[in-house]
Amino acid sequence: MVKSIFEELEKPAPKNHFTVGIVDDVTHRSLPVDETFDIQPEDVVQSVFFGLGADGTVGANKNSIKIIGEETDLFAQGYFVYDSKKAGSMTISHLRFGPRPIEAPYLIKRAKFVACHQWQFLDRYDVLDCAADGAVFLANSPHGPEEVWSRLTVETQEQFLAKKLKFFVIDAYKVARATGMGGRINTIMQTCFFAISNVLPAEEAIAQIKKVIRKTYAKKGEAVVNQNCAAVDQALAALHEVKIPDSVTATRRKTPLIPAEAPDFTQRVTSIMLANKGDLLPVSAFPVDGTWPSATSQWEKRAIALEIPVWDASICIQCNKCVLVCPHAAIRPKFYPTDALQAAPPTFKSVEFRSQEWKGSKYSLQVAPEDCTGCTLCVAVCPVKSKTDPKLKALNMAPMQPLREQEGINFRFFQGLPAPDPARLALDVKGTQFREPLFEFSGACSGCGETPYIKLLTQMTGDRLLIANATGCSSIYGGNLPTTPYAVNREGRGPAWSNSLFEDNAEYGFGHRIALDKQTEYARELARRLSGNLGQELVDQLLGASQTNESEIAAQRERVRELRRRLAKIEVGEASDLYALADHLVRKSVWIIGGDGWAYDIGFGGLDHVVAMNAKVNLLVLDTEVYSNTGGQQSKATPRGATAKFATGAKRIARKDLGLIAMTYGTAYVAQIALGAKDSQAVKAFEEAESFPGTSLIIAYSPCIEHGYTMGLSLEEQKLAVDTGFWPLYRFDPRRADAGEPALKLDSAPPKVPLERLWASERRFQMLKDPQTSKDLLAAAQADVQKKYAYLEKLAAKG
Amino acid sequence: MVKSIFEELEKPAPKNHFTVGIVDDVTHRSLPVDETFDIQPEDVVQSVFFGLGADGTVGANKNSIKIIGEETDLFAQGYFVYDSKKAGSMTISHLRFGPRPIEAPYLIKRAKFVACHQWQFLDRYDVLDCAADGAVFLANSPHGPEEVWSRLTVETQEQFLAKKLKFFVIDAYKVARATGMGGRINTIMQTCFFAISNVLPAEEAIAQIKKVIRKTYAKKGEAVVNQNCAAVDQALAALHEVKIPDSVTATRRKTPLIPAEAPDFTQRVTSIMLANKGDLLPVSAFPVDGTWPSATSQWEKRAIALEIPVWDASICIQCNKCVLVCPHAAIRPKFYPTDALQAAPPTFKSVEFRSQEWKGSKYSLQVAPEDCTGCTLCVAVCPVKSKTDPKLKALNMAPMQPLREQEGINFRFFQGLPAPDPARLALDVKGTQFREPLFEFSGACSGCGETPYIKLLTQMTGDRLLIANATGCSSIYGGNLPTTPYAVNREGRGPAWSNSLFEDNAEYGFGHRIALDKQTEYARELARRLSGNLGQELVDQLLGASQTNESEIAAQRERVRELRRRLAKIEVGEASDLYALADHLVRKSVWIIGGDGWAYDIGFGGLDHVVAMNAKVNLLVLDTEVYSNTGGQQSKATPRGATAKFATGAKRIARKDLGLIAMTYGTAYVAQIALGAKDSQAVKAFEEAESFPGTSLIIAYSPCIEHGYTMGLSLEEQKLAVDTGFWPLYRFDPRRADAGEPALKLDSAPPKVPLERLWASERRFQMLKDPQTSKDLLAAAQADVQKKYAYLEKLAAKG
Repeated sequence: MVKSIFEELEKPAPKNHFTVGIVDDVTHRSLPVDETFDIQPEDVVQSVFFGLGADGTVGANKNSIKIIGEETDLFAQGYFVYDSKKAGSMTISHLRFGPRPIEAPYLIKRAKFVACHQWQFLDRYDVLDCAADGAVFLANSPHGPEEVWSRLTVETQEQFLAKKLKFFVIDAYKVARATGMGGRINTIMQTCFFAISNVLPAEEAIAQIKKVIRKTYAKKGEAVVNQNCAAVDQALAALHEVKIPDSVTATRRKTPLIPAEAPDFTQRVTSIMLANKGDLLPVSAFPVDGTWPSATSQWEKRAIALEIPVWDASICIQCNKCVLVCPHAAIRPKFYPTDALQAAPPTFKSVEFRSQEWKGSKYSLQVAPEDCTGCTLCVAVCPVKSKTDPKLKALNMAPMQPLREQEGINFRFFQGLPAPDPARLALDVKGTQFREPLFEFSGACSGCGETPYIKLLTQMTGDRLLIANATGCSSIYGGNLPTTPYAVNREGRGPAWSNSLFEDNAEYGFGHRIALDKQTEYARELARRLSGNLGQELVDQLLGASQTNESEIAAQRERVRELRRRLAKIEVGEASDLYALADHLVRKSVWIIGGDGWAYDIGFGGLDHVVAMNAKVNLLVLDTEVYSNTGGQQSKATPRGATAKFATGAKRIARKDLGLIAMTYGTAYVAQIALGAKDSQAVKAFEEAESFPGTSLIIAYSPCIEHGYTMGLSLEEQKLAVDTGFWPLYRFDPRRADAGEPALKLDSAPPKVPLERLWASERRFQMLKDPQTSKDLLAAAQADVQKKYAYLEKLAAKG
Repeated sequence: MVKSIFEELEKPAPKNHFTVGIVDDVTHRSLPVDETFDIQPEDVVQSVFFGLGADGTVGANKNSIKIIGEETDLFAQGYFVYDSKKAGSMTISHLRFGPRPIEAPYLIKRAKFVACHQWQFLDRYDVLDCAADGAVFLANSPHGPEEVWSRLTVETQEQFLAKKLKFFVIDAYKVARATGMGGRINTIMQTCFFAISNVLPAEEAIAQIKKVIRKTYAKKGEAVVNQNCAAVDQALAALHEVKIPDSVTATRRKTPLIPAEAPDFTQRVTSIMLANKGDLLPVSAFPVDGTWPSATSQWEKRAIALEIPVWDASICIQCNKCVLVCPHAAIRPKFYPTDALQAAPPTFKSVEFRSQEWKGSKYSLQVAPEDCTGCTLCVAVCPVKSKTDPKLKALNMAPMQPLREQEGINFRFFQGLPAPDPARLALDVKGTQFREPLFEFSGACSGCGETPYIKLLTQMTGDRLLIANATGCSSIYGGNLPTTPYAVNREGRGPAWSNSLFEDNAEYGFGHRIALDKQTEYARELARRLSGNLGQELVDQLLGASQTNESEIAAQRERVRELRRRLAKIEVGEASDLYALADHLVRKSVWIIGGDGWAYDIGFGGLDHVVAMNAKVNLLVLDTEVYSNTGGQQSKATPRGATAKFATGAKRIARKDLGLIAMTYGTAYVAQIALGAKDSQAVKAFEEAESFPGTSLIIAYSPCIEHGYTMGLSLEEQKLAVDTGFWPLYRFDPRRADAGEPALKLDSAPPKVPLERLWASERRFQMLKDPQTSKDLLAAAQADVQKKYAYLEKLAAKG
């Protein structure tokens, strides 16, 4: 049954199957569905539009529904389908128009009009699958009407011919540029839809679009209105019908979404979901226990960056700061013996590694071109200036497409290069970045301020890491399907990740710890009981092992391997129990991760409970100071004066200080960090938290698009947050108190820049319309900052 | 329908009706129940025992079940019925024994054996109601077999004759005293049960009892075993059958539970519940909206104290401290004009009031003898020593019964005396205690450490107070049925009290505030709209009124009365709306109250939320450092080293510091108080909290029987808690910070007594069996104390 479904999927141009029911080949209780069944009368116009998240397609379609619904006698309906990726993902709009109220609570399977607003989708997805016979297909294409047919694959051409489709093209990006609209193609594509879909008489529709334009942009002045109207007119001029030959002329076939070297599950299941056909997967395709394979984001290759960084090896000082700040683990360094370069691709770059300890090694910095999102943070952090051109750094942005193939080959070669033994790497900014990230290529926004912290964590503890993740952005990009950014190293070890509820994540992670401890306790007890069979010396070593650093942990893993070898030969029932539990003799690291909505609000009761219990767990708060994932509700971390999308009146009270609260226990390690402001302090905090014998809490400043500025500037912004005193950096370590020192150590200087500077650079502080209120709030917020620093100074003072 | 039920209840010796179904006279959907129906075969022995909470009846019955269930072939069943009063309430045990497994999931209606372990119950409750015809009745009676019949009421004698009961008596307290058992009558009554109930052959039963005695007390030595065995033997010797005459000889009738001057609802509903016949109340008897009348505990008159305080007016210095510490509001002071004494009962005491301002007034201190629980705290706090006998104070304990009638009369007279205008009373210890408590005679334990705080609160704000009460002891004694301790003053004003859930009480109270503010806002808007009709001057005064003290509030109330007078004459629709809302123009006080289980644990998320929002609500935490109501689970307030009934391993970590956490916001008023250690600071804290314009939090040290010492010593213990530094006193007032001073003010000195002293005086710190662990925990706890004080000192330091 499974086989046949997969075979079916592999056929070119299968039957319409956008919304078949569940195929339950396990209990066999599902009913067969006639995929061709459609009850929509012919006078209902059904249209499907494929767009890219944030390209304006969904907005334009909502607009079209408004025009038709309000300005004509027709009834309208719209469904909008998209996944939870933050940007760069596909959106599908399903629109129906007809002379009677539309009662169709399901998606469109046979559209009379299909539009593909992104040319690259044609190769990637089966966008014609939903086209009815004789439908009109509109593509935004860089290729003109004469050339475009030859750019299609065999499979696509076959569909055109089999369904007798009509084909229109427009180079919408070209029109947009020409009319001063930049990259905004939504109005242009909307115009084309009305021009060729026959929902309304074309002239009437165009008049309506212009009416809406006048209404929408009136405030922005006549120039903007005219610009948009010009775009409409030029769209009509640039729209062409394509003449379709009688037969297939292409020789190029669609390339598989997932390469052949990917693991079996990725090929059989992930690829189907990536092709947007996950609904077709039979029940048997899913893992029995709900565990989902990780390390799959590496196969997705979204290639959404327009520009990627290019390395100037000649001036690079090998600081690895670019690697640290990259939110997508898309730029990586390595040092390795020179002879590893023998099979290097021709354009692969390397230089002498600047190191006494590793003298004679080579150093490379490599970008993963299809995984980079083009956020520019690596360039921003680069401390090097070219002597020949001060505008150039050791990393500079360049268009991706010309580099894609070559750098893709280079990245694959780079990954095959030998990696250094982590036990020999320092736990500082540079050293940690030579460790393999086990969190890569997530669906987080380009320039995300949260993901660098998670990536750093996986570099330091990834091979023994359990994560309990609260609901929020980190649960979306962390556990999103079809692919998973948490990865495994060459030995197959990587983070185990799970997500319970918004309101119980700290407790959930606390439970991880309790379960681990119990299993370890039992493993130790079994080892003691079996010591006669296993040899007292090995058992003593296993139970007495110090596991405070990488080499000690490596040694313990070797002992566990030896233990398993010996256990395999023992025919005592308990031996198989210990065999199963043996990995629990190696130290595990439990991290409880979430955003401020979780930590300050909904899950705070549990977070407080865990801190109070002083269990050996670590808490990481990715503090964006707002509910980012749900689109902007105020949290208790939201600072005074900041607005949020759903709290436009601005916060009137100071933000809650989670760090100070945790410090009142005196028993927890507490750090407040900002990677972009002081990377060494951030790395130090992770090291100290991990080694602390009780609960640790790291509150990590996480810039977010909700703050209202370009994420490429977020490093500077973090510095500003620290320099204004808005975000003091500190580490509170009870071990210092045991040594008679103040536990609290301030890692940032007293406020030296007025808070106004920070407010001026983030839109969230500028949305209030009443200038007096805004001024009052700024004054109060400035007072907050002074008070908070004074409070911390008191606590950090000796005696 | 209702009428007939009440009439039925008033008849003497009604039919058996212990467990009739619900009588729904509102929807008329209930089915009639045949109250005489009983399916238990004759060979099942059904017995009912009436005991007093903590007199050992329930324990002895559980013991009897064990003996019969384990040592014979009979099957056994037991149900134990008691209310949630902490002590001094009735317990009813229903026991069944028979030759087959017993499947009777309901209480006994026709018992062959009924025992009443407390003589006073015969006059108060209908204990013979459940006796079957021909049943055996056993009473613990101070009156011998010759005299006892004559001590019964007409109603009881009639039941004896109608049901042809057999009657046995024993003076169990006399036997207990004679055999050195003190007040413990349980073994004695158990012996009598076995001797006359015929469940087992008497000799076999006695042998079994002695076997259990040996098993239970073996560890305590031969002497204790012998003492108990002697009690068994003497019980048999002191047990007598009463010869019952052929006809009623009594002339005395049962006195009603509730006097005739009580309000209608109290007489019609409360009294039925007090008689333990609440199940008989028809649906129509209950208030439609669930609101329950308050001020009913005054009618209960439990009279459970063996001794009550007697006032020596001649040496009293009129400090009112006894009044402040009384947990049950059972001792009260008043000053009044001399001529008010004209109708005074002969034993009513008064002296000159020591006051310049009120020169010529008289002062009285009066005990409510039937409401006092005999805790002795008033005597303990009395600062006066008699010059003639240094063992005597201005208050001294004396047996209650001889004083009961006379002091009852005196108390009623006292209550009729004129009271001073609260606006003229100082807000200090003495002044507040002249205010009427609107929380009195609760079911809390004798000597309860929580209730004095609530009483004080009602004295300061009771006539405009709304309480949101968390689950816990305070919700049990605060909202217990049948009677309610929250009371009303002569004007009918008193606290409005409600209880939602353990986990949402702070949010619930926050909602009270929001609702009040909205209603006030609307009332103000209506007043403005109607100002043409009402007169601009009155409206201006109403809306502009300052309401910061009692006289300003009284003035505003007068304005509201005038407003209502004028509204009554206006025929505008909005006038009736404003009439309904007018009371909202007077300032209300919202207090959110609960124990540490709520505040530190289950409801902490909400408490933190409310503090963060800085709404005008007040939070009062009655901190017993343990889940008191459920019998002793560890909370986050439990101190290091303390055990609890369900956490016998002792707390291994320091207690959570709720006050410090709240202080981190910088915007909330926070006080930590201990009434017994520094009463003036406690009173000051309530005054400051009430006047503070934002959120306030008072954390009140509340001694509890779970701490393991006699509650009469709790004032000394509170001083010790403060002197050891275990419980620092402070007030954190953001208003001080606005004035450039440190917000935190420490009200207690640095630790000057070793913590060991506190540990030595409370059993909760002495339950650990391992002396080394105990020593280590003490050392750590001592370090906690030093650290905490140092932390507070840092915060309280200037600059």
